[in-house]
Amino acid sequence: MGDTDTLAALRALMASHSPPLDALIVPSEDYHQSEYVSGRDKRREFVSGFSGSAGLALVTINEARLWTDGRYFLQATQELSDQWTLMRMGEDPNVDIWMADNLPENAAIGIDPWCISIDTAQKWERAFVKKGQQLVQTSTNLVDEAWKDRPPVEINPVIVHPLEFAGRSVEEKLKDLRQKLIQEKARGIIFTALDEVAWLYNIRGSDVSYCPVVHAYAIVTSDSAFIYVDKRRVSSEVTRHLEENGIEVREYSAVGSDVSLLASDQLKPGEAKIVGNGSYEEEDNNYELVWADPGSCCYALYTKLNSEKVLLQQSPLALAKALKNPIELDGLKNAHIRDGAAVVQYLVWLDKQMQEIYGASGYFLEGERANKKKRFMTLTLTNSVTRYMMKYGRESTKLTEVTVSDKLESFRASKEHFRGLSFPTISSVGPNAAIIHYGPRAETCAELDPDSIYLFDSGAQYLDGTTDITRTVHFGKPSAHEKACYTAVLKGHIALGNARFPNGTNGHALDILARVPLWKNGLDYRHGTGHGIGSYLNVHEGPHLISFRPQARNVPLQATMTVTDEPGYYEDGKFGIRLENVLIVKEADTRFNFGDKGYLSFEHITWAPYQRKLIDLSLLSPEELDWLNSYHSKCKDILAPYLDESEKAWLKKATEPITA
Amino acid sequence: MGDTDTLAALRALMASHSPPLDALIVPSEDYHQSEYVSGRDKRREFVSGFSGSAGLALVTINEARLWTDGRYFLQATQELSDQWTLMRMGEDPNVDIWMADNLPENAAIGIDPWCISIDTAQKWERAFVKKGQQLVQTSTNLVDEAWKDRPPVEINPVIVHPLEFAGRSVEEKLKDLRQKLIQEKARGIIFTALDEVAWLYNIRGSDVSYCPVVHAYAIVTSDSAFIYVDKRRVSSEVTRHLEENGIEVREYSAVGSDVSLLASDQLKPGEAKIVGNGSYEEEDNNYELVWADPGSCCYALYTKLNSEKVLLQQSPLALAKALKNPIELDGLKNAHIRDGAAVVQYLVWLDKQMQEIYGASGYFLEGERANKKKRFMTLTLTNSVTRYMMKYGRESTKLTEVTVSDKLESFRASKEHFRGLSFPTISSVGPNAAIIHYGPRAETCAELDPDSIYLFDSGAQYLDGTTDITRTVHFGKPSAHEKACYTAVLKGHIALGNARFPNGTNGHALDILARVPLWKNGLDYRHGTGHGIGSYLNVHEGPHLISFRPQARNVPLQATMTVTDEPGYYEDGKFGIRLENVLIVKEADTRFNFGDKGYLSFEHITWAPYQRKLIDLSLLSPEELDWLNSYHSKCKDILAPYLDESEKAWLKKATEPITA
Repeated sequence: MGDTDTLAALRALMASHSPPLDALIVPSEDYHQSEYVSGRDKRREFVSGFSGSAGLALVTINEARLWTDGRYFLQATQELSDQWTLMRMGEDPNVDIWMADNLPENAAIGIDPWCISIDTAQKWERAFVKKGQQLVQTSTNLVDEAWKDRPPVEINPVIVHPLEFAGRSVEEKLKDLRQKLIQEKARGIIFTALDEVAWLYNIRGSDVSYCPVVHAYAIVTSDSAFIYVDKRRVSSEVTRHLEENGIEVREYSAVGSDVSLLASDQLKPGEAKIVGNGSYEEEDNNYELVWADPGSCCYALYTKLNSEKVLLQQSPLALAKALKNPIELDGLKNAHIRDGAAVVQYLVWLDKQMQEIYGASGYFLEGERANKKKRFMTLTLTNSVTRYMMKYGRESTKLTEVTVSDKLESFRASKEHFRGLSFPTISSVGPNAAIIHYGPRAETCAELDPDSIYLFDSGAQYLDGTTDITRTVHFGKPSAHEKACYTAVLKGHIALGNARFPNGTNGHALDILARVPLWKNGLDYRHGTGHGIGSYLNVHEGPHLISFRPQARNVPLQATMTVTDEPGYYEDGKFGIRLENVLIVKEADTRFNFGDKGYLSFEHITWAPYQRKLIDLSLLSPEELDWLNSYHSKCKDILAPYLDESEKAWLKKATEPITA
Repeated sequence: MGDTDTLAALRALMASHSPPLDALIVPSEDYHQSEYVSGRDKRREFVSGFSGSAGLALVTINEARLWTDGRYFLQATQELSDQWTLMRMGEDPNVDIWMADNLPENAAIGIDPWCISIDTAQKWERAFVKKGQQLVQTSTNLVDEAWKDRPPVEINPVIVHPLEFAGRSVEEKLKDLRQKLIQEKARGIIFTALDEVAWLYNIRGSDVSYCPVVHAYAIVTSDSAFIYVDKRRVSSEVTRHLEENGIEVREYSAVGSDVSLLASDQLKPGEAKIVGNGSYEEEDNNYELVWADPGSCCYALYTKLNSEKVLLQQSPLALAKALKNPIELDGLKNAHIRDGAAVVQYLVWLDKQMQEIYGASGYFLEGERANKKKRFMTLTLTNSVTRYMMKYGRESTKLTEVTVSDKLESFRASKEHFRGLSFPTISSVGPNAAIIHYGPRAETCAELDPDSIYLFDSGAQYLDGTTDITRTVHFGKPSAHEKACYTAVLKGHIALGNARFPNGTNGHALDILARVPLWKNGLDYRHGTGHGIGSYLNVHEGPHLISFRPQARNVPLQATMTVTDEPGYYEDGKFGIRLENVLIVKEADTRFNFGDKGYLSFEHITWAPYQRKLIDLSLLSPEELDWLNSYHSKCKDILAPYLDESEKAWLKKATEPITA
């Protein structure tokens, strides 16, 4: 179905809706407010054609607009047809303001209430008051009705995430949670975020690409626990694991009616006996409040509650999940070592390929900037490989953004505990690297180019941890400007990674550290600087973040949290640079402890070299150079056991001490 | 009257009040929410004995508590009698929370409504709801009734601040203001902040020590303007200046009834003809709103307004005043040069005195740490001066924190346009330097000490600008720890001063830059990093600031704003370090302009050397050293015209290029 047809079909459904809709909002999120969603939940992509991970489509009688953030401006421009108007978040009015200002008085604005959070729905409703507009909850999802070839439901099995990786039992997690319920005087709590359900019950699945989660809801009270999931997917082993922990399995579709029962204190466990939790001192819980996280709980469930007896507060699991236990921390460190080895193997392979196929000077040598058109004629044939390449022709061995990222995946897949990628690999050459969340497609993607920067941002899911790393490399002769920019990004990356700060400091305060070296030259980047990362869970995990966004103020960084350190710089149509390591927040060994607050610092757990050739040494301070050499030295030692002799030799060269 | 008597007298007045008061709040501020207040307005100091510039006293039937902030914890401990309990802001509960939690149900809590802002009163009233407590507005000020020897009213003259210093005429300022009224649909606006009235009407006075302001209110509507001031103080020249600008002079005490008239749209100009404003295109203004700044307007005036027709929004003069015009910028720069010369003259004098009187090794030489008790016997008599000192005895020439700060004032007083100090000089030796806002008293203050750090934070009012500078020096042998701390503070001071940042960045984001070098060692300071500074007005001026406080988020820094850069480090009972320059925000000459936002940087306008001896060079980066040498070189050249030959020689030595 083409773009125009889709819009026409949707508008027909809007017109025949009761009441007729003046506009239909199609958010990016599924029924669980997920960032990455399954194929059949990619409603916003189906409607608009825009495939980025974040965005919101608005269809009115005669307009179609798509809001997305700075990471996706370029990509959206390319993907949207001329039926669509791109709305740049941070530059154009927010969607609620735009709707309130531009939709007619008393407009009926449709939304599937399962697809939006309580916070968002309430914010929109407040904006709509002034012109008497109405947020209309559709009883079916109109996009699904218009989507003739919507992918079918997949019956993916639920699996138990064993204690050797989870590090903390369901029993302990439920005990902590129930103490929180008592503290907050809550009768029960609703979980709709997929990673929270998976984390709490120590289960995993494969319902969503890149995120090992299960499409499920959960409700926990002081004396009962439920999971709402397609029962066809729950094996007897999993049922046993759940029942041992006093968790009753109910059908996915039953969550709505059970939330209504919870609201009236009628939700009772069924036949499944409550076992486990032996150590939990049950207290009489006669509280009336039902706890729902306004940022993740869907509006559809909220409307089943008594709004005066709802505790709208961030889920206690958000922070509990972010504070990694010692086994999770060990797992993350190990996973990142294996992952780093795969990245180095990839760089070794790519370096060789770039020299062989394109006659590039390679990872180490600057060489001369090749004249692309005449390359095959004029290149000095310095090695036999170039001759080989010329002999067998170029097409057969051509490297593209997609073929090389497949190779990267294969290196990762060879590692222990590999379970898939943690997000779509960003493998981007030259101008594509300026598209912050670029996703290459096999049919249209670019060829590797020895005269261009190559940026790859990728990660994997391993049973013991989730990884995320970005490196930017050049296999030919980078320009002085590219080097200056790379060095500024590297300086920001080092400044943030080396920061020490008192307990209580949030990621909003720290964000600037990564930007100062760029700002010095009037440069900046339009994305945050860091996000939490899960333990074999979502690659983007809250509640903390390092960003200029106000949300980054809400949660101070705490020891045992994970966070990425990923500044960048992007020149539209030219190149992009980003460097990313995962850090663990830890107690700092400061000489003093002013104010008895305790000070924190970061431990890098990502291991892969920075490219010496892209660094303008004259811009690095002695302190920065020391850090770089120390990191490289550790990198070489830590990855060695996972590399063969030639890879080790390459890494030794890549991590040789640099002197100013 | 002693402390106990004061409390007893207040409690008697509270008991006989109708209704009887369970508690009485005595804020620090006067009827204009001023930071510095006149002698007769120092009610909180009179009641509690605590003399700091910020704090709040609460007197209950059987308790007396004083809240103040981190700058004053030590000082308050020393000044409060045992009748009083110190409440540490940021550590102990806020005053409203404490009252709500600890005062009885239905308590009557008294306050003079002229002494608190709308914001504060409303915040307290919200906190009081839960226990049915009442904020009772007393019709007289109970402290004034108990204060038998309260200083009388002074009849200080109002003076006109000439255009050659103000840079912008009253006519232009009123025109801009009236456009703002129309934009915001306001009938009129009330000004209670003394510096706003002075700035708007280009007048100055001497009603408050350190702030050249007049005790006055103002009301401006689209076709009238009023000043409420003791008419005995307005000369015919000043009356002419005001009348020329269409400003009518009314008695100070008439403001309350005129605000009531404004609320009912009955406030009309009197006989004084409305002249001037010829260029102002008068528009019919039938708006109903009255604009009051909730942070500065007193609650007493607010209660005379119709609360549904009040525009509670920051005064437009806050930002207008902060954005300095070119003449103000020139004036500030010139004032800071003369002020810097006075500081250097002071350092030259003090260096000589310290050597002569105390046998100190002096500003330049490290010397040995003297054994204080035996100093007079064991010191090698390396110069004739020491012999002189021993001959004439010590007492006669003794230097104290107060006598030296008087000398500093005399150097300033010799400079053109000098009009007084801009705040009480902080002149502090050793442990006293750890008291952030230390105010030495002649009777009790410490003697200078060649073995201790000496910190002075001072500034003056000149007709062309207000100054504020802090330097920390040592005339003997500083410890390695003192040097390390001084260097960390200096690094933070340089990092902030050298920052470049995009338009839109606020002082909350920048604050961390000054702390990072301290945090690295687990050190910090319990105060903000920078405040705006007036043009021959208040030394602390909003609306922007550089601080970890949430208010610092509200106003982005903009070109032509002034702001101080003053990190510090304080060890209770030992020493304190602070370095402070005034900066002007200006457009940065960045090589690029990513996002077309425009980038900003700072220009230092304060000129005085940093002490080489206190810098641990091994901790400075080459970039920091370059900055220091460049600043010192400019300092030497800029101040030379104001110094005699020996002072120039001293400054040349103090600013000699440093090599790592």
